[in-house]
Amino acid sequence: MGQPVRRFTLGDAEALDIADDLAPLRSLFELPDGVIYLDGNSLGALPRSVKARVADVVERQWGQDLIRSWNTHDWIDLPSRVGNRIAGLIGAPEGTVTVADSTSINLFKALSMALYLRPDRRVIVSEAGNFPTDVYIAQGLADLLGQGHVLRLVEPGQLASAITRDVAVVLLTEVNYRSGARHDMRALTTYAHEMGALTVWDLAHSAGAVPVDLTAARADYAVGCGYKFLNGGPGAPSFIYVAPEHHHGLRQPLNGWLGHDAPFAFETDYRPALGIEAMRVGTPPILSMAALDAALDVFDGVSIARLKAKADMLFDVFVTEVEAQVPGLELVSPRDPVWRGSQVSFRFPEAYAVVQAMISRGVIGDFRGPDIMRFGLAPAYLRYADVWRAASVLAQIMRRSEWDRPEFKARAKVV
Amino acid sequence: MGQPVRRFTLGDAEALDIADDLAPLRSLFELPDGVIYLDGNSLGALPRSVKARVADVVERQWGQDLIRSWNTHDWIDLPSRVGNRIAGLIGAPEGTVTVADSTSINLFKALSMALYLRPDRRVIVSEAGNFPTDVYIAQGLADLLGQGHVLRLVEPGQLASAITRDVAVVLLTEVNYRSGARHDMRALTTYAHEMGALTVWDLAHSAGAVPVDLTAARADYAVGCGYKFLNGGPGAPSFIYVAPEHHHGLRQPLNGWLGHDAPFAFETDYRPALGIEAMRVGTPPILSMAALDAALDVFDGVSIARLKAKADMLFDVFVTEVEAQVPGLELVSPRDPVWRGSQVSFRFPEAYAVVQAMISRGVIGDFRGPDIMRFGLAPAYLRYADVWRAASVLAQIMRRSEWDRPEFKARAKVV
Repeated sequence: MGQPVRRFTLGDAEALDIADDLAPLRSLFELPDGVIYLDGNSLGALPRSVKARVADVVERQWGQDLIRSWNTHDWIDLPSRVGNRIAGLIGAPEGTVTVADSTSINLFKALSMALYLRPDRRVIVSEAGNFPTDVYIAQGLADLLGQGHVLRLVEPGQLASAITRDVAVVLLTEVNYRSGARHDMRALTTYAHEMGALTVWDLAHSAGAVPVDLTAARADYAVGCGYKFLNGGPGAPSFIYVAPEHHHGLRQPLNGWLGHDAPFAFETDYRPALGIEAMRVGTPPILSMAALDAALDVFDGVSIARLKAKADMLFDVFVTEVEAQVPGLELVSPRDPVWRGSQVSFRFPEAYAVVQAMISRGVIGDFRGPDIMRFGLAPAYLRYADVWRAASVLAQIMRRSEWDRPEFKARAKVV
Repeated sequence: MGQPVRRFTLGDAEALDIADDLAPLRSLFELPDGVIYLDGNSLGALPRSVKARVADVVERQWGQDLIRSWNTHDWIDLPSRVGNRIAGLIGAPEGTVTVADSTSINLFKALSMALYLRPDRRVIVSEAGNFPTDVYIAQGLADLLGQGHVLRLVEPGQLASAITRDVAVVLLTEVNYRSGARHDMRALTTYAHEMGALTVWDLAHSAGAVPVDLTAARADYAVGCGYKFLNGGPGAPSFIYVAPEHHHGLRQPLNGWLGHDAPFAFETDYRPALGIEAMRVGTPPILSMAALDAALDVFDGVSIARLKAKADMLFDVFVTEVEAQVPGLELVSPRDPVWRGSQVSFRFPEAYAVVQAMISRGVIGDFRGPDIMRFGLAPAYLRYADVWRAASVLAQIMRRSEWDRPEFKARAKVV
């Protein structure tokens, strides 16, 4: 793929918006005035349907119906219902996905299950630039087991040579959180299987953003995040997928009572539920899970492939304008849309200050240390004119060094 | 303690309500009309302050301020802030409690930490009638470790003889979920320490209900539930306590990124945060945690000892009336209030049907298999007249065998 060369005017961007069949999705979101939000890959915007749903769960279900809601409003099966909705977005069959805990906790379950199935192997392969929690969870599990498991962290280009016959599991995030680069899930899974290894795919930056087909890829396990492109709200619960071929005798080590086959029999011995229900642990946070459920309404009848195509065009508009106005700024994200998620990242030594300067002008992106400015392209609520304007703001800040002020360099606690 | 003998009239109960200095707390809750709610030990009622707080978090913090809320609304420190509020209710110093995950997950952390500190011991002691998740989590951890750890489950009376010098950790729920019987936390902890063992206390039915003094008891670890007597809402996050003497080198095996000492430095190796922050794992469910935070307003300036004294008097009114009208019904809960939580349980073979018949008449208690009817006495929102009426309804259902109808015997999925 060559670099796009034709520049866009604001009029071009507005014309793209008029022609955009996904444009009506924006009205499903609450968005603040005067803000261009390019951080939906960190915290998705608020879908309007969430407000009424959360109020109903608090006031009527909890407040009026109280404990009865576990049955009458079927809170008990909410994780499965939401799981099945997410399954439809990631190429997973019904009954293979549930919603529980955080991504970190679900990674612990998935890795543990993979290691159970490969008792004679001691290597976990991952990418050196994987999101820290993926790596940390693997380190913590290896330490806990005390059986000499090692974590082999390599650059993406070295994955094939790193996946040798001593590897128990390959743990990868499909779309890299810093660069937006996307792995070939199918090829890597196939190769891992040839080597006798299992795969755990982290879909944090994939679910709701790129077309994922876990079935076609023959992925073994997957986890993902509810609060990025799925717009489930801050700290929304995570999801976990287990391939059907691993459902027989399915068991993970976090044996909470709701993962028991008969939680309300209060038996003395743990007996895992059959199938994906065994991934449950404790009582789920119903308010947060109901918010995620309502947020998924946005995806009803919407093709993820179509969303990704729009994100790719948003990328082209943004990158073309930035590169035309700020020659030499290093694009970190792949230019080939096939190998990219819905984000664009640039490298710049003062990336933090640039992002703060942009925020002060109403364009919200984020920073990932040491030198990445990252912009999420959530096609459900972003307009072409938004990214055109965002590119102009970025370019102006760069050209005039507007970022070079102490207030933009002072680091907040959360960056 | 002898059995109370003086009966109460409705007028007596109403007089107690008039004289009750805690009576104004009831106005802090939303309660449905026509319902007497005796299940606050399963799901606490809705505090009014929660509605506005959750709406604000959804609409303004998430909807308008978006990702910036991690800093501007200090979402990042919400777990510590809520943890410190709970610390004040359980005799824990500031900086020793945080809120994260579910009780089950926190049990896994606490048990793991205890076993790290007792590498040469292989026995976990618990009570045979402990809540299942406590036992299941211990089983799952022992299986995962594969080092021959065994779970020694004994009746409460056998605990002293079971805590021998090969015991690594004693895992107990202070107040039993079925009977309401309360352990002597201080004596058992002292004895465990004499034997070289550590203690994990589950405060699920204690926090907000009975005066707990973790410091005085010298408890090592404690966990507890946000959605029972703390009224944090369905599936509210759990809390975890680690005694100050265990903070040095504190580490638990669920190494999520938010438990890292510098989460936003995105380092390759896990380096646990100093102190209680190391108990964090993934991104917490902010909506559910904000609800818990708002719910804790109920306890501002309220003495837990005073709440427990009221719960004990509610118990006396309820039990006196039931026993006077239904002679021979077996009381399972201890009569001595010192060794009891805020609940009353009776045993009856058709307990499930009785509870359903009561619910059909607006009195909500719950059933715990195989034969326990359990009534939570939440003194913050229950009136003496409520429990007097509830006792009359129970007595009438028992005397007339009103429970003996098919619709009351058909089991729901969640009981």
